[in-house]
Amino acid sequence: MSKRIVVVGGDAAGMSAASQAKRRGGADVEVIALERGRHTSYAACGIPYWVGGDVADAESLVARSPEAHRANGIDVRMATEALEVDLAGSVVVARGPSGAERIGYDELVLATGAHPVRPPLPGIDSAGVYGVATLDDGQALTGGLAGLRPDAGADRGRAVVVGGGYIGIEMAEALRKRGLAVTLVDALDEPMTTLDPDMGALVHRAMETMGIQVRTATAVTGILTDASGRARAVATADGEIPADLVVLGIGVRPTSELATRAGLAVGPSGGIRTDLRMRVVGQEHVWAAGDCVESFDRVSTSWVHVPLGTHANKQGRVVGINLTGGYATFPGVVRTAVSKVCDLEIARTGLREVDAAAAGFAHVAVTVRSTTRAGYYPGAAPVTVKMLAERGSGRLLGVQIVGREGSAKRIDACAVALWNRMTVEEMTGLDLGYAPPFSPVWDPVLIAARKAVDALAAAR
Amino acid sequence: MSKRIVVVGGDAAGMSAASQAKRRGGADVEVIALERGRHTSYAACGIPYWVGGDVADAESLVARSPEAHRANGIDVRMATEALEVDLAGSVVVARGPSGAERIGYDELVLATGAHPVRPPLPGIDSAGVYGVATLDDGQALTGGLAGLRPDAGADRGRAVVVGGGYIGIEMAEALRKRGLAVTLVDALDEPMTTLDPDMGALVHRAMETMGIQVRTATAVTGILTDASGRARAVATADGEIPADLVVLGIGVRPTSELATRAGLAVGPSGGIRTDLRMRVVGQEHVWAAGDCVESFDRVSTSWVHVPLGTHANKQGRVVGINLTGGYATFPGVVRTAVSKVCDLEIARTGLREVDAAAAGFAHVAVTVRSTTRAGYYPGAAPVTVKMLAERGSGRLLGVQIVGREGSAKRIDACAVALWNRMTVEEMTGLDLGYAPPFSPVWDPVLIAARKAVDALAAAR
Repeated sequence: MSKRIVVVGGDAAGMSAASQAKRRGGADVEVIALERGRHTSYAACGIPYWVGGDVADAESLVARSPEAHRANGIDVRMATEALEVDLAGSVVVARGPSGAERIGYDELVLATGAHPVRPPLPGIDSAGVYGVATLDDGQALTGGLAGLRPDAGADRGRAVVVGGGYIGIEMAEALRKRGLAVTLVDALDEPMTTLDPDMGALVHRAMETMGIQVRTATAVTGILTDASGRARAVATADGEIPADLVVLGIGVRPTSELATRAGLAVGPSGGIRTDLRMRVVGQEHVWAAGDCVESFDRVSTSWVHVPLGTHANKQGRVVGINLTGGYATFPGVVRTAVSKVCDLEIARTGLREVDAAAAGFAHVAVTVRSTTRAGYYPGAAPVTVKMLAERGSGRLLGVQIVGREGSAKRIDACAVALWNRMTVEEMTGLDLGYAPPFSPVWDPVLIAARKAVDALAAAR
Repeated sequence: MSKRIVVVGGDAAGMSAASQAKRRGGADVEVIALERGRHTSYAACGIPYWVGGDVADAESLVARSPEAHRANGIDVRMATEALEVDLAGSVVVARGPSGAERIGYDELVLATGAHPVRPPLPGIDSAGVYGVATLDDGQALTGGLAGLRPDAGADRGRAVVVGGGYIGIEMAEALRKRGLAVTLVDALDEPMTTLDPDMGALVHRAMETMGIQVRTATAVTGILTDASGRARAVATADGEIPADLVVLGIGVRPTSELATRAGLAVGPSGGIRTDLRMRVVGQEHVWAAGDCVESFDRVSTSWVHVPLGTHANKQGRVVGINLTGGYATFPGVVRTAVSKVCDLEIARTGLREVDAAAAGFAHVAVTVRSTTRAGYYPGAAPVTVKMLAERGSGRLLGVQIVGREGSAKRIDACAVALWNRMTVEEMTGLDLGYAPPFSPVWDPVLIAARKAVDALAAAR
């Protein structure tokens, strides 16, 4: 008899696990995937580009449709929500189009994703307030946009984005490109909160240049509604900001209620805890992957919630291999992230100053300005690199990069250095690619490493 | 009394050493730098862009002039050639504008650079045959260009580039941009000989698309001259190729005659051999850096000649630190190189298949095609990644990348992985930056690593 694998969640992690298991297991495995929404295997990270008009439609963001998965032998059940997991009985209770059912499993994979944070503020659930975690969220938002004055040019309407993380900033840009007057509000001192504030200030300036109003250090106290109950303004400690449309970009939290109710291990972030093979801690036949889990941060040696499609895909693949007699591990993250906003490329890996302090590291930090290409080569543009190293050991702790085209993917070399626990002294010798169209003769990353070495010597 | 440091060679390596020593040593050191040409601290790697018109003039390629170095306290002597080194007497014999002189030293730095290979063919030294190693070479070539029909549009003249390495290809493109009909000739089967032939074939096609004639597998037998002794054609086994201008892009060799005559250690490539601190092997007070030395290849564990400005700068800095009571090493290279030709970005690190075999590695090689951005994101363009791994251990041995914008600097992550002796299995977990404008959700490098893991399993 074949082994039955039940996957809860039909996006990146779940369908990577399902696909890998079916490909490897063939007729030896029966794979059932439950998805409560209307899409499978889609790129939620592409939603800002869809909203902004760079991507034509939702379908473009779908990597593999339910039909395509079915053609590969996976029993995909759409509009089907898992309600309970009965661990003792190895059964999932689900409700689909034809009612509730109990589905027995030999192996269970939880890939329930994440959902936008909705702080408990008055009016937060009003009509006209949108999240951006799923394609259905994106559909609702583009629908809301269509309802504004479609051809009014620069006066189509007013959008307020709550939250200055990368999703909030990407959405602010997207809405600006669609002709709205956009205000971004955040309680912190600078936007792009994945960076230290001094680097975030560079993003702040770029956003203002693009005509986005940025209200920092401003706490949102509620959403004000009109007589019909529709959002009409965002209330803050400094007054109201009128809004035809409100987007929540505060971040996401793991969707782990199903796991919690079943008594599975969940960390402080709300993410499910797994071992290196992505097996849920303390369980023999339950696995988890994607935005609903915590990942091991190799630098701070703590467990963190890092909802990114790239981790979801890797973790899903690891689960699929382990479910079918193979051996694979997800060795953790170093918190690399890149984004593009207002012609600025933004990247980070490892720890910010606040993270380093929280992890107990004493550190030095240096910031250098250089150019993306040799200074004499056409198109050479500014790039700023901030680098953190541990005092004493000199070990690299983190890098942040903000600059024009050709800046962001420079973070990858730093991420691999971090992964391998290199010191900044060792990094000064790295053999990075040099040619005038790609780099000054000293790559900006190497200049930063040299400065960090000097700072370490001064801090002795 | 202050220590006297004599530096032979005023380009990247020599002046990095001189500058670092003077900055650190101050009044404790006297630094004399001898340069036989007319420029200091210039970017020879920028010559193709100057010839092609992307860079306005030679001065743009000069990072620091003799005057600027003098203002920093360095005694720069231009048009001064070192003729002999008397190791026993610690004296350099030099000839400058005011005749020959003997200059005593406490520490000697050899940074004599490299010169274009001129195979011993009939006519190779004729007028109209140009190298591209120094700014003076570049000046001669742009002078030669100016002598052609300046405003004849597509019919300005005919150039033949001998040699299909990256310099030859960059020069072919530059001359094409200046309106010449360009033919590139090489004895090997594919151009871009820093890559394996299958990857070179991608470059071959791009060059033809740009209107460059590529004659591979064609041995050059000589340069034919007119009555005045000026080059008029390149002779090959397959007939003559008419030429108004011939450019040698066969590569360069270390300029180490001075060292050889003094009895210093020189390797098979002709490059001076040093220890990790860049001290010449067997010498107490003689150092060497830049295009005139051999570097340790960390992957093949052999000594190789890799003439690149980035190494020259690093090695010069290491010498300057060691000369002034500090401690620094040049830990070797992994043979990373990037270039841009005809809208193609080209990169390599580590070993090609032929290098792996020569080093005694048994290997697997895989090639994947992916895109530079998420498939749905505007501007997603093809990129091809080839990856080599050692059979058995699975250790990464080398990577080659050819693709459109956003391809080449992906090599840096591979170079750092190689530096740290990662296996391709370990690489599949790497936390590289992902966002739709920069990468598919599986970075092309990670896809290649996964395929390499599969190939290793199949090769067991």
